[in-house]
Amino acid sequence: MTEKISLIAGTANRPLAEEISTYLDVPLTPVEIKHFNDGETYAHIQKSVRGSIVFVIQPTSPPVNSHLMELLLIIDALKRASAKEITAVVPYYGYSRQDRKAQPREPISARLVANMIEKAGADRLVTFDLHADQIQGFFDIPVDNLEAHPILAEHILDLGIRDAIVVAPDVGGAKRARRLAQLLNTNLAIIDKRRPAHGKTEVLNIVGEVKGKNCILADDIIDTAGTISGAAKALKHKGAKDVYVCATHALFSGNAVEKLSIPEIKKVIITNSIFLEPQKRFSQLTVISLASILAESINTIFEGKAMGLVFDRLYHKVEEKRHP
Amino acid sequence: MTEKISLIAGTANRPLAEEISTYLDVPLTPVEIKHFNDGETYAHIQKSVRGSIVFVIQPTSPPVNSHLMELLLIIDALKRASAKEITAVVPYYGYSRQDRKAQPREPISARLVANMIEKAGADRLVTFDLHADQIQGFFDIPVDNLEAHPILAEHILDLGIRDAIVVAPDVGGAKRARRLAQLLNTNLAIIDKRRPAHGKTEVLNIVGEVKGKNCILADDIIDTAGTISGAAKALKHKGAKDVYVCATHALFSGNAVEKLSIPEIKKVIITNSIFLEPQKRFSQLTVISLASILAESINTIFEGKAMGLVFDRLYHKVEEKRHP
Amino acid sequence: MTEKISLIAGTANRPLAEEISTYLDVPLTPVEIKHFNDGETYAHIQKSVRGSIVFVIQPTSPPVNSHLMELLLIIDALKRASAKEITAVVPYYGYSRQDRKAQPREPISARLVANMIEKAGADRLVTFDLHADQIQGFFDIPVDNLEAHPILAEHILDLGIRDAIVVAPDVGGAKRARRLAQLLNTNLAIIDKRRPAHGKTEVLNIVGEVKGKNCILADDIIDTAGTISGAAKALKHKGAKDVYVCATHALFSGNAVEKLSIPEIKKVIITNSIFLEPQKRFSQLTVISLASILAESINTIFEGKAMGLVFDRLYHKVEEKRHP
Amino acid sequence: MTEKISLIAGTANRPLAEEISTYLDVPLTPVEIKHFNDGETYAHIQKSVRGSIVFVIQPTSPPVNSHLMELLLIIDALKRASAKEITAVVPYYGYSRQDRKAQPREPISARLVANMIEKAGADRLVTFDLHADQIQGFFDIPVDNLEAHPILAEHILDLGIRDAIVVAPDVGGAKRARRLAQLLNTNLAIIDKRRPAHGKTEVLNIVGEVKGKNCILADDIIDTAGTISGAAKALKHKGAKDVYVCATHALFSGNAVEKLSIPEIKKVIITNSIFLEPQKRFSQLTVISLASILAESINTIFEGKAMGLVFDRLYHKVEEKRHP
Amino acid sequence: MTEKISLIAGTANRPLAEEISTYLDVPLTPVEIKHFNDGETYAHIQKSVRGSIVFVIQPTSPPVNSHLMELLLIIDALKRASAKEITAVVPYYGYSRQDRKAQPREPISARLVANMIEKAGADRLVTFDLHADQIQGFFDIPVDNLEAHPILAEHILDLGIRDAIVVAPDVGGAKRARRLAQLLNTNLAIIDKRRPAHGKTEVLNIVGEVKGKNCILADDIIDTAGTISGAAKALKHKGAKDVYVCATHALFSGNAVEKLSIPEIKKVIITNSIFLEPQKRFSQLTVISLASILAESINTIFEGKAMGLVFDRLYHKVEEKRHP
Amino acid sequence: MTEKISLIAGTANRPLAEEISTYLDVPLTPVEIKHFNDGETYAHIQKSVRGSIVFVIQPTSPPVNSHLMELLLIIDALKRASAKEITAVVPYYGYSRQDRKAQPREPISARLVANMIEKAGADRLVTFDLHADQIQGFFDIPVDNLEAHPILAEHILDLGIRDAIVVAPDVGGAKRARRLAQLLNTNLAIIDKRRPAHGKTEVLNIVGEVKGKNCILADDIIDTAGTISGAAKALKHKGAKDVYVCATHALFSGNAVEKLSIPEIKKVIITNSIFLEPQKRFSQLTVISLASILAESINTIFEGKAMGLVFDRLYHKVEEKRHP
Repeated sequence: MTEKISLIAGTANRPLAEEISTYLDVPLTPVEIKHFNDGETYAHIQKSVRGSIVFVIQPTSPPVNSHLMELLLIIDALKRASAKEITAVVPYYGYSRQDRKAQPREPISARLVANMIEKAGADRLVTFDLHADQIQGFFDIPVDNLEAHPILAEHILDLGIRDAIVVAPDVGGAKRARRLAQLLNTNLAIIDKRRPAHGKTEVLNIVGEVKGKNCILADDIIDTAGTISGAAKALKHKGAKDVYVCATHALFSGNAVEKLSIPEIKKVIITNSIFLEPQKRFSQLTVISLASILAESINTIFEGKAMGLVFDRLYHKVEEKRHP
Repeated sequence: MTEKISLIAGTANRPLAEEISTYLDVPLTPVEIKHFNDGETYAHIQKSVRGSIVFVIQPTSPPVNSHLMELLLIIDALKRASAKEITAVVPYYGYSRQDRKAQPREPISARLVANMIEKAGADRLVTFDLHADQIQGFFDIPVDNLEAHPILAEHILDLGIRDAIVVAPDVGGAKRARRLAQLLNTNLAIIDKRRPAHGKTEVLNIVGEVKGKNCILADDIIDTAGTISGAAKALKHKGAKDVYVCATHALFSGNAVEKLSIPEIKKVIITNSIFLEPQKRFSQLTVISLASILAESINTIFEGKAMGLVFDRLYHKVEEKRHP
Repeated sequence: MTEKISLIAGTANRPLAEEISTYLDVPLTPVEIKHFNDGETYAHIQKSVRGSIVFVIQPTSPPVNSHLMELLLIIDALKRASAKEITAVVPYYGYSRQDRKAQPREPISARLVANMIEKAGADRLVTFDLHADQIQGFFDIPVDNLEAHPILAEHILDLGIRDAIVVAPDVGGAKRARRLAQLLNTNLAIIDKRRPAHGKTEVLNIVGEVKGKNCILADDIIDTAGTISGAAKALKHKGAKDVYVCATHALFSGNAVEKLSIPEIKKVIITNSIFLEPQKRFSQLTVISLASILAESINTIFEGKAMGLVFDRLYHKVEEKRHP
Repeated sequence: MTEKISLIAGTANRPLAEEISTYLDVPLTPVEIKHFNDGETYAHIQKSVRGSIVFVIQPTSPPVNSHLMELLLIIDALKRASAKEITAVVPYYGYSRQDRKAQPREPISARLVANMIEKAGADRLVTFDLHADQIQGFFDIPVDNLEAHPILAEHILDLGIRDAIVVAPDVGGAKRARRLAQLLNTNLAIIDKRRPAHGKTEVLNIVGEVKGKNCILADDIIDTAGTISGAAKALKHKGAKDVYVCATHALFSGNAVEKLSIPEIKKVIITNSIFLEPQKRFSQLTVISLASILAESINTIFEGKAMGLVFDRLYHKVEEKRHP
Repeated sequence: MTEKISLIAGTANRPLAEEISTYLDVPLTPVEIKHFNDGETYAHIQKSVRGSIVFVIQPTSPPVNSHLMELLLIIDALKRASAKEITAVVPYYGYSRQDRKAQPREPISARLVANMIEKAGADRLVTFDLHADQIQGFFDIPVDNLEAHPILAEHILDLGIRDAIVVAPDVGGAKRARRLAQLLNTNLAIIDKRRPAHGKTEVLNIVGEVKGKNCILADDIIDTAGTISGAAKALKHKGAKDVYVCATHALFSGNAVEKLSIPEIKKVIITNSIFLEPQKRFSQLTVISLASILAESINTIFEGKAMGLVFDRLYHKVEEKRHP
Repeated sequence: MTEKISLIAGTANRPLAEEISTYLDVPLTPVEIKHFNDGETYAHIQKSVRGSIVFVIQPTSPPVNSHLMELLLIIDALKRASAKEITAVVPYYGYSRQDRKAQPREPISARLVANMIEKAGADRLVTFDLHADQIQGFFDIPVDNLEAHPILAEHILDLGIRDAIVVAPDVGGAKRARRLAQLLNTNLAIIDKRRPAHGKTEVLNIVGEVKGKNCILADDIIDTAGTISGAAKALKHKGAKDVYVCATHALFSGNAVEKLSIPEIKKVIITNSIFLEPQKRFSQLTVISLASILAESINTIFEGKAMGLVFDRLYHKVEEKRHP
């Protein structure tokens, strides 16, 4: 019995799954996913996976509860169908911002989700840029928390921006922004939202010098784009030259598209960790595909090689672009 | 420290929770439940539950994935807030019909849900008329699977129907229907859907004699009402007098209301295990409240008494109506 | 290191295990099983199973507690001896009828047994015709619940019975009987045991038309044969022609043999899921061996192929016999 | 809600349970235990135990597999019936001698049993003189491993034996025998069974001086009595005066009674941890009841007091008898 | 049976435990803790805790491995001695900085520790200022992650510092520092350590304006004090007036005391979450006791009240000091 | 993908790990282990182990808490780095003497350690001469409890000692000593430490005849050597000729070396299960390496062969030496 690989796509991001399938030259195992009239999700794997090493590709993007349930049902079906090893490939991990009790009597939803994925039967998680690195520790199974920074940095370097500075849109994102700043070899500024006194309006206090600089506003997730859009305006107000926006996960909820399509923002660079409907695309937007990194990571896991090899190559490319 | 009781309502059926609260004279503990712009559910208990015996009232009715997630988040929040004991009161248990692998490579969704509820931190489940009794065995925690039959029977007996026969709309529901037949002291018929040959139309074969009888079509769940509506027509076709429909859980998906509002059906009797929107109510419909049984069951659990006492009273009432 | 297969037989049905061993051309790994003077069971695997894919063949037939304990001890020994994967092959799953709380304060014994098998260290269960399909959901490990219907149907079709109808001996078995009826392409009748009034004798009410028909009474388990024997008489009384009895699991407890050896029953067709002592065999009895299906299933699991292949062939054979 | 206590007796030793019930003035909660025709055990608690602190009294004595299953089924029923806390009171713990892998590919049956008891839902174990103290460590739940030595010592001191020496019947029992020797303040001898050369007969080598001494042969379990009976003869042969036999658990398997009723043995002192059928009693036998210690231990647990208090009193009594 | 409280102190911070004991007027339950000659830790609870609500006070401060093992052994002993509920009160949580995989093939030590505490048998954790809030999510049991900020803020406000600014010593601590800045109602600056080019010396880049300001360098843990000491010098260099240092957990490893006793630092304010040996105290140091908050929190848990009450009072005091 | 083997050495006994590595011709996977200034242990595997069969060599010898934590951190890192199977090779198992509750309210530390090793992610334990065989049952994973007796016996036979007798230094070690006596084909004596009356000095009572015999004092662990040294003197006092000391695990705590370097002891024979610092070696001491047995055992596990083969060879060699 030789090892077999199976790729399974949920409905959350089939185009990404298909890109991965093409890259790996491994067909997607057919799976029937439907919603009954009463809204119950149903998942049925159509081909034998007995003894297979299976990768289930499903970001838990909106509608998050349905996409999560779908993921769990697929895992349950695979487990009961005697799959040998099940890796949940979840490029965007929903509920990741509910990662601690910010006030008493809140759930820690990201841990609840981790428990559900483990309990359903996953043997490993592959994901991208978790909102907090510590979420890896919500799991007892191995987590490969891949990093989109190198491919984002590569793209930004290609733009040839001079006098650049990376700006964190809030204090909580300072560490993440510094990571990108390191790859781009730029300085860092941080926006600190503060309310000068009770009842007064919140002000965006920019910690660091941005005047005359090309600002790269870097975040992990763009949700309603309120923070980013406000930050871009504040930067311009403080004398920044161009403002670029860069993030791994593009939720684009509410009227995010409108908020991002403003003159203060020159470009918005995101990845396809979440499937983006055509109507949410706009002229300033660039979408970079994670398919090749994911495909190589899947192959690395299947062949039992070091994940570092995949990333060393990426870092090397960034390094080269930085010092051509 | 004396024992404290807390009642918490999710959003799935607040009117039922409020009825229970009134019956028990215990206020609902305030809980903030909202959906963020990206669809993530958020649950925040507003008052201390430290050391409390808590009952969370939330059927996992449509939209089932969201209602389930809400239930789990509330349980997680309660557990982390040091509640002493958490009982999930789930009058309708979603995914209960996915209770076995009907074909290879299907999930057993009802077990997955059971695992999720247990893992989230529930100490007990209270539910009504599980689609299969065996679902109790999907749990390691105690399950109180209450029975709506006695209050349904009580109502039917009040209607004073003569020459009645209980009819199961399909073979899988025969056992359940017989239970009601026993309470009403009537005979039983069963409808057996069959396809005479490959490619031919399905026929409804009625096993048992219904001619001239008042038929009580009894099921546990009415979903799209296709089966029930077809059955009612078939019974009429075979010479039945009046056809009554009776079920515990009214999902009323798709155009169920239309299918039930037909002349062949005289009355439809259901419970409020699932919240029914006003626009889904119609003239033949009677909704019987489970609030008093649930309230008494909750009280019984809180006080550590025998659940049998609640039901003995109900059976006694049925008995009395049967032989006044 | 190439994968190794090991077959281990408990004492419950060695002839079946030997048939399987012959079919697969894999010798049974010797195991010493004995009972000490005080009744404790002792199991000792005699050959190394380190790194092996092991199949333990042991129905939990009477004496069920001892056969179950033996199974668990063998699994524990295998686990501690570093077997790579352990599949419990339990053609008859004892305690399967205690699958729910029929009244308050009963155990759910079938779930308890499931927990014991999982906790002892089994990685998979292979079984036949579980009393309730939902018992699959009592396990978190994969369960292959094989179906004896096709080989039973094949045999019945060979008998060339005309004007046949399948009869369920009670309402609870209606669904199972319908499954056989579908394979044989016959109609269905159901026997509904009822007590007309408190204190009165129970009557067997036959739902459906059996007059002049050759009845195939179909059940999953024949225990004391009281129900079956009564049903056969009732059918004859209602004008049935010949009565055949067909079941997967033959416990034949008490004086079952006597009750089945009556003129009202023409033939009894069972499988060897349970070892039948020679003194329990009688002239009308036909025992069909499950060895080939089990052997093919074991091979399918070992080779990581689809179980469907085994069954597609069986269904095809039935189809062919039906329309020769 | 005040705490309630419930006592439940399995069938293994009802007289002991009744003695405890009388001592505590707490009635036994009625429980129906029966064996179906096919040998399946059935347990049904007859009165509500919701919220109760329950003690289940059931040694896992022969037939050990059935008594163990009965215990597990009772625990499962109690758990599902919402008992608040379940203590398994197992005066004799079957399978305790299978406590390690003595050779490769053996099970560790005593751990398997521990896992089963825990998994079924027990919150605590109360037992007597485990064959190995380490079995406490097979559990994650609290184990109260009570000691019969003080009440045995008390009885032996009452006999007023002079020039006494405690003798261990084999090397494995040396530590246990020394414990009794300490309580009685006597010396210790040990019997070392050895085979002088391959193929030669085993000889009983007595390590220590027994000539002219009254020997108290002390063991934890008497099974077939082969070892004890041989030891008594060997001691006599070496010039011992009277030989007394003393043990906690009397299995008396095979022809143990015959082997113990020999002139070389003056008295046999045991406890009622295992129910002894009347036909197994003989003139030299004295049975000491554990009911009072068990009753006091149960009360101590229920009231949350220190178990040490129960035993301090016992040790004090022994001390007083030793130095009157 | 009324609820009993027990306080148990490990050896890591007995003075703190004694303060708590005095505050609550509950004596410490005596416990023998020793190290055998070979270094094994031994813990023996000296008084019955059967049925008690127990609080074990033990920060896992250096020597962390021994203090952690001691904590686990105490919890194991309590669990096996039938304590009713065990709360681990761990004011300083060792290994909290190893909270994620910063590079491949690292452990997540803080999760490993969480697993160990849960598995040993703790029912709840009470701790202070976890290095990452997400560590709460490493546990399935409730975690009360208390906050030292209000009592630190209260003390700082008492110092009457004008023109204050809170400074985070590195980007990772920005969020934590902002929390203190909010309580004190000051601005925020952040120190960003950067290496201008490969091989060049690291520079401390101060993001924000500190000239002429009184700087409060705020961190959660002071370990070797290298970062803090360098930051103080850099702030002075940039024209800061006085520099204050403030942290919850004072490890003071290596020559931390020396590094903090420099003229650039005016005052160092810490808590007694970790026991500080007398020789590590120096003139600029102020140690604020957590005993009263811990005592009130323990009481709150024991009495099942809301933890918020304890903290509302503290916030109110800070508010009052801010606007007297 | 073919199976890969990885050997990892903690810091507890690197020389032994290197010997094994040489024997197997498999290099040690580099791992960085360090202690931060505050005493926290850090472990970082330096090369990919994805998909590898890993053996971690680390006795939990003094400092036991640190060596244990190191082992657990390595296992956690391996698990999260997707190692396929992790075997903890722990030649000396620390805390093994705390294997039961000897008095109330003690922990069972050896079980706590077992839980920690399992929970961290080990799939198997390989160890030597556990203090109690029952510790195997503290694990649910397979335990290979290897035996040093045959290589010790081989060495002793080489010494050509005549008139030998094996002596157990206390009653608890009688069984272990008898095992060696069987291999050497000698008689057995046992030393029974007793206190003749309360307050009197303890006396060493020798059970068995040692006069004129060459005594081999056999134990599993030599800790402070107090017992052994006292026993040697007592034996000499009773007329023994030469006294040899033999043990598997040499902790040599306190002034053990001094106590063993006395004229009453002719030779001390131990293994290298624990790394012995050069200053603890003395003229009478012989250290026998376990490297070859461990290497062969590791190979046997990796290749899925029977462990018995390794030991059969060893027993055969002993046999041959005994009857040359």
